[in-house]
Amino acid sequence: MKEKIMAASIELFEQNGFSETSIQDIVDALGVTKGTFYYYFTSKEELLMDIHLRYIEGLLDEEERIISDKQRSVREKLYDIIFMLIHNVERQGREARIFFREMKHLSEEHLQKVKEKRDLFRQRLQALIEEGMKNGELRCDLSPSIATLTVLGAANWSYQWFRPDGELTDAEVAKQMVEILLDGMSAPSVSKAE
Amino acid sequence: MKEKIMAASIELFEQNGFSETSIQDIVDALGVTKGTFYYYFTSKEELLMDIHLRYIEGLLDEEERIISDKQRSVREKLYDIIFMLIHNVERQGREARIFFREMKHLSEEHLQKVKEKRDLFRQRLQALIEEGMKNGELRCDLSPSIATLTVLGAANWSYQWFRPDGELTDAEVAKQMVEILLDGMSAPSVSKAE
Repeated sequence: MKEKIMAASIELFEQNGFSETSIQDIVDALGVTKGTFYYYFTSKEELLMDIHLRYIEGLLDEEERIISDKQRSVREKLYDIIFMLIHNVERQGREARIFFREMKHLSEEHLQKVKEKRDLFRQRLQALIEEGMKNGELRCDLSPSIATLTVLGAANWSYQWFRPDGELTDAEVAKQMVEILLDGMSAPSVSKAE
Repeated sequence: MKEKIMAASIELFEQNGFSETSIQDIVDALGVTKGTFYYYFTSKEELLMDIHLRYIEGLLDEEERIISDKQRSVREKLYDIIFMLIHNVERQGREARIFFREMKHLSEEHLQKVKEKRDLFRQRLQALIEEGMKNGELRCDLSPSIATLTVLGAANWSYQWFRPDGELTDAEVAKQMVEILLDGMSAPSVSKAE
């Protein structure tokens, strides 16, 4: 039931917004009583935090799995992370949009929890980029934090535009994005040779 | 007064959210009557649309000015556009956050107007990238639309993290971001030569 309440709420929050959705709307959508809701959540805000935490924790687990793979290069791991983020928009588009839009409705304490996990995701990606700079895969004349935020921005922005039924698959979009971020958009004759 | 109402609303919308801010809150913040509000806006939703339109129209004007400059290369123009987007977060951080977060509160008709202008911004950027592919500045083996969305994502995401009082200035962030997007993050020995 907890799962059902979360799924129904995600749908309502995305459609109508967090503030516009009441606990009554949520229980009406499921045909249950408010008592059922309060058995699982103390408030609508706690439910929102659970949605946020589950979303970011899922991403953190996948990121850890990718980074700990000793068989793959930094370049390959960057592809895996970007693919994971875009693929995730395909699988969890609603959660992604709620994650980015409704964060301001979290209480200060809950927001802090979510922010710590977001920061961890970014810090691990930055550590991977720094590893690539040390092992010679990546150039060293860039700020690791700007490089990290550029990669994250390009991939995360896809929640605004990526459509699973669009022209390119998530794998193709990720492949092109990694090529741009690692090899650049310049024509070979004018890049690096300058 | 119209300007003052917009400025006060932007502050309240960012602090408390669009739904949580009433017209009463807005007029209270300014010490005026509701009559004054309704002299300039028919509703809170119309005010939100005016904020959105003014924001995107400002960006469109600057984009046009940049692209029409015959003295500059495509590479330089891409720098100018990325700098403009990051610099804009510095100048108009509140408007930027409201622009991305509160769009769902626009009516279908107003949303359409804003979307058309957003699309125009993206289409013009894509035309610039296609021009670079034709004139030999940019490589031709990338999808122009993915390249455009990667550039836009990297730069737009800065509204989530760029702080004017941070370590790097907007010009330095833009410079590094353009280097990544045009020349790539790979070390010279492993990029392109593969």
